[in-house]
Amino acid sequence: MANSKYAHQDSLPLQPSVRYEYVKSFERCQPDILLPNTWIVIRIDGRGFHKLTAKYGFEKPNDRRALELMNAAAVGVFKELPDLVLGYGISDEYSFIFHKDCNLFERRAAKLITTVATTFTSHYIHLWPTYFAGKPPLTPPMPSFDGRAVMYPSVRNLRDYMSWRQVDCHINNLYNTTFWTLIQRGGLDAAAAEQRLSGTVAADKNEILFKDFGINYNNEDDLFKKGSVVFRAYELVDVVPTTTEKQKDGGEARVDEEDDDAAVVVLSKTAAEKERKRRAKATVAVEHVDVIRDDFWLRRPWILSGRAGKLKE
Amino acid sequence: MANSKYAHQDSLPLQPSVRYEYVKSFERCQPDILLPNTWIVIRIDGRGFHKLTAKYGFEKPNDRRALELMNAAAVGVFKELPDLVLGYGISDEYSFIFHKDCNLFERRAAKLITTVATTFTSHYIHLWPTYFAGKPPLTPPMPSFDGRAVMYPSVRNLRDYMSWRQVDCHINNLYNTTFWTLIQRGGLDAAAAEQRLSGTVAADKNEILFKDFGINYNNEDDLFKKGSVVFRAYELVDVVPTTTEKQKDGGEARVDEEDDDAAVVVLSKTAAEKERKRRAKATVAVEHVDVIRDDFWLRRPWILSGRAGKLKE
Amino acid sequence: MANSKYAHQDSLPLQPSVRYEYVKSFERCQPDILLPNTWIVIRIDGRGFHKLTAKYGFEKPNDRRALELMNAAAVGVFKELPDLVLGYGISDEYSFIFHKDCNLFERRAAKLITTVATTFTSHYIHLWPTYFAGKPPLTPPMPSFDGRAVMYPSVRNLRDYMSWRQVDCHINNLYNTTFWTLIQRGGLDAAAAEQRLSGTVAADKNEILFKDFGINYNNEDDLFKKGSVVFRAYELVDVVPTTTEKQKDGGEARVDEEDDDAAVVVLSKTAAEKERKRRAKATVAVEHVDVIRDDFWLRRPWILSGRAGKLKE
Amino acid sequence: MANSKYAHQDSLPLQPSVRYEYVKSFERCQPDILLPNTWIVIRIDGRGFHKLTAKYGFEKPNDRRALELMNAAAVGVFKELPDLVLGYGISDEYSFIFHKDCNLFERRAAKLITTVATTFTSHYIHLWPTYFAGKPPLTPPMPSFDGRAVMYPSVRNLRDYMSWRQVDCHINNLYNTTFWTLIQRGGLDAAAAEQRLSGTVAADKNEILFKDFGINYNNEDDLFKKGSVVFRAYELVDVVPTTTEKQKDGGEARVDEEDDDAAVVVLSKTAAEKERKRRAKATVAVEHVDVIRDDFWLRRPWILSGRAGKLKE
Repeated sequence: MANSKYAHQDSLPLQPSVRYEYVKSFERCQPDILLPNTWIVIRIDGRGFHKLTAKYGFEKPNDRRALELMNAAAVGVFKELPDLVLGYGISDEYSFIFHKDCNLFERRAAKLITTVATTFTSHYIHLWPTYFAGKPPLTPPMPSFDGRAVMYPSVRNLRDYMSWRQVDCHINNLYNTTFWTLIQRGGLDAAAAEQRLSGTVAADKNEILFKDFGINYNNEDDLFKKGSVVFRAYELVDVVPTTTEKQKDGGEARVDEEDDDAAVVVLSKTAAEKERKRRAKATVAVEHVDVIRDDFWLRRPWILSGRAGKLKE
Repeated sequence: MANSKYAHQDSLPLQPSVRYEYVKSFERCQPDILLPNTWIVIRIDGRGFHKLTAKYGFEKPNDRRALELMNAAAVGVFKELPDLVLGYGISDEYSFIFHKDCNLFERRAAKLITTVATTFTSHYIHLWPTYFAGKPPLTPPMPSFDGRAVMYPSVRNLRDYMSWRQVDCHINNLYNTTFWTLIQRGGLDAAAAEQRLSGTVAADKNEILFKDFGINYNNEDDLFKKGSVVFRAYELVDVVPTTTEKQKDGGEARVDEEDDDAAVVVLSKTAAEKERKRRAKATVAVEHVDVIRDDFWLRRPWILSGRAGKLKE
Repeated sequence: MANSKYAHQDSLPLQPSVRYEYVKSFERCQPDILLPNTWIVIRIDGRGFHKLTAKYGFEKPNDRRALELMNAAAVGVFKELPDLVLGYGISDEYSFIFHKDCNLFERRAAKLITTVATTFTSHYIHLWPTYFAGKPPLTPPMPSFDGRAVMYPSVRNLRDYMSWRQVDCHINNLYNTTFWTLIQRGGLDAAAAEQRLSGTVAADKNEILFKDFGINYNNEDDLFKKGSVVFRAYELVDVVPTTTEKQKDGGEARVDEEDDDAAVVVLSKTAAEKERKRRAKATVAVEHVDVIRDDFWLRRPWILSGRAGKLKE
Repeated sequence: MANSKYAHQDSLPLQPSVRYEYVKSFERCQPDILLPNTWIVIRIDGRGFHKLTAKYGFEKPNDRRALELMNAAAVGVFKELPDLVLGYGISDEYSFIFHKDCNLFERRAAKLITTVATTFTSHYIHLWPTYFAGKPPLTPPMPSFDGRAVMYPSVRNLRDYMSWRQVDCHINNLYNTTFWTLIQRGGLDAAAAEQRLSGTVAADKNEILFKDFGINYNNEDDLFKKGSVVFRAYELVDVVPTTTEKQKDGGEARVDEEDDDAAVVVLSKTAAEKERKRRAKATVAVEHVDVIRDDFWLRRPWILSGRAGKLKE
């Protein structure tokens, strides 16, 4: 009888899944839920990009196409993940920020990290031929990115994170610009250039660039000097000048203390859907601007409020 | 004087990085080190692949090209990460296993998960045109994968994990094969097919396939029935038949109890380097074989020992 | 020769500690650092106190001596841990709160939890004979407490935690008071009393107490109705009446939004030492007051600021 | 009407618990489940015991009463927590070990740590007057203990942990014995004694004790030399002498490799209850024996198997 075949056909026990399913319980042990009411920063970094830049002949100290590819991939991520409120990219690293009220994937860290990192990678590989047209195609080992999640409880912490990255950008770029100018135009080798810069402060490097090579660092491209800031572009808000004055006097920024602890507002389903649509309609902007001073935040209140602004006409 | 320009040129405070660097301390709070001496399983899953299969017209119940693309991406991952000892893929999910002695990235979970997931994604996107030649190219939203890390303390736990996944493969594939046969050849719609299968056990589904459609499930492709097992291919080891006999009698597998708790052996640098080279030389195999019974493990002792086997001539 | 004895004297390998010390590395895997800039709540709960209350004949619904012993133990904890800013006790549970700027034990969770829990236990056992004089002495099984740590990023979250516990106190005490009155004075058995209360709201329970037994719940002891709030007692601050008016109108509390995100101020060593001394000098108060409305917080600004107030004369 | 009183009686909102209960969700974020199938070690340490030993005049280098009080408290913990399989105490620290199959409190770390630590503290304070009779009573600051949980995947790891602690005991005790002998009998001050011991190895210290003071360290009390091992006392098992021979030859211990990966056996409720009763009947032993060599483990197989042995008559 035909049926008898099935009995040993596969010798797979027929309903043994229960026997092995206990292994699922081991998954609970990787702690994973990010603390509610904290800003979530996912930062990804290129893996082994030193080799990559050599293999594909990236320009030094900055390769414009490579940075624009990073930015294009980041924009791709923003379009697929409407919960993102802010991004910041320098060199081969990118930070993606979810609002403190965000509940995507129930705030599970592994899911948030891998979703951001693989979506970024997916766009990066997909767009590579566009940005490196005329170059030999990608071959293994392929570009990849590692990532991590960090929580920041307050707006002050979040802004300090952004400031930290932008200061890093400034310091690294000033160093690299001077270093490579000494090599490319000054004829030094790497060791000599490093030696020349040893112990110098920012003013010294500006001086070397200006006196020895006639370069005013101030005129360098903001893409290189300030990095890339990614956000949804609504209409900018006018800011009363007094605030700006105060800042000029070295006053502490205060933007962060106003809305930090607003009670958590849960939107109705309709409101949430409307909100989502407005976000989806907004274009994703990439700008090379200062994020350390208040101005950036005051004029784009939707970033910290997490509420869509007024769509541009 | 030229220098005076620099003073406010950028109005970036000149050495303020220290002021913001405290934010780094927040990174320590995501617990991340995976327990030493445990097997590490990184499992990735396609995100929103239901939509993807619709968008690109994947064949039902199994799309061979799609599965082969997954396998090719997995092989790419194995070639870039010599620490991997085993992989297993079904549908849009893939498991990657690091040996319990592995110390890659100091066992930091976020780094391991994102490296595996983005390397896989990178190869997947890169190889897509090869496997889907003649189809319209990829457009956003792009394929992406989420991932997680799970630790298993013993070989028994690890093998049970593999068995769990392979049993899942079997159950899902038998269901899907019958479901789609009822639709594609039986003319039922999805609701009717689901209704027909409601409450059936494996034997019933085999019967439907055989009696109504003349299909012997046993003859279906092992790629679909057993999933894909990835490992480094050294020369297989002969296994004494008695062991096999014992298994036929339903005896418990014992392979796992032999080498489980061998003292941790730290290789000398030279030995480790030699080991690494042998691994790099080994081809990466993708086979569709049973991993539930002992045979698979006994004939490939290098998987559980973590030591390179004898290279094939 | 005498020395030869030592060779096998102990047969302990003489310097083998290095061989085993690798086990220390396993300790890194219990994630433990609590996120900086978050309020830390350590809540402990009596283990098996149902049996304990039976064994030692605690009065129902509330045993004053038992609650006063809990409070005395909490005061003992406050005196030994000057970093604590607030405590709250009901029944057999106690919450201890460290300021968000607190860096005690580098914010390691296990150390914070166990230190609070064992210091509390130590005082509890030590003081038991004082509070239960004339009763038979403690015998095993001994009272013990389990504990946990929870982080709250904002003052609003922290105050909501306190409100949650005090509302719980109110709900439980109203229920218990009515339940035990029905039994002790109404002659019902437990099942009948439970049945009588099934489906009742607060107003119903008040009515039962008042109409059937002449008890105005409002006149019950605040120790039972409000629980016990522990803090360091400095001079209360006068609060402008307008705030109070606003609250009467049901306005949202605002105290939390003012100082929530003040930049982290690091005290000089001298200042920190001075601060510590003032805290040590302050008496530890236990009061049975409302912590839901603003008044409590406005008049004791040192709790949220974390800075010692003005010592009482 | 009487009822109207209740309306504002308390001005507590009547059913607001829902409003605040969201704070419970923050508790999920302290990762807490210990990995299944791993040995759990809870180690507690006396806090500030240096001051305590001075305050209560503990004898140097070892105070027998203080150690016996630690042991008595540990026995109290064993009697209240039948899941414990092994304990080890030296100085003011104690390790408590749960079997890898233990599921107490669903393996939640915070609950396990605090329960062990507070139960220990409770017995310690309770028994203090018994062990320090004739001394002034305890006064604040009170003895307290911090604690931590560590997971070990294999028997080898667990035994190495025990060996590590016992080797530490040996090293510390030899040092302390020599140090205090130099002071108490040699008339040196602390600085001179420290100087005298600087750079010495174990053999040197043995020599100092023997030549200068006629002390054979070998004859010191095992309580001091080996620490205290706590376990449930069933009938010892006879061990074939060959094993012992092998060890004498420096052979690796093998006891750990035999039962390490036995499949997880889930007992029936009746069997589990029977098991529990046998454990409760067993006396709790405190012995000062070697736990580094195999003999201890081979003769007490119930420790690693987790199954009650044969009760002594």
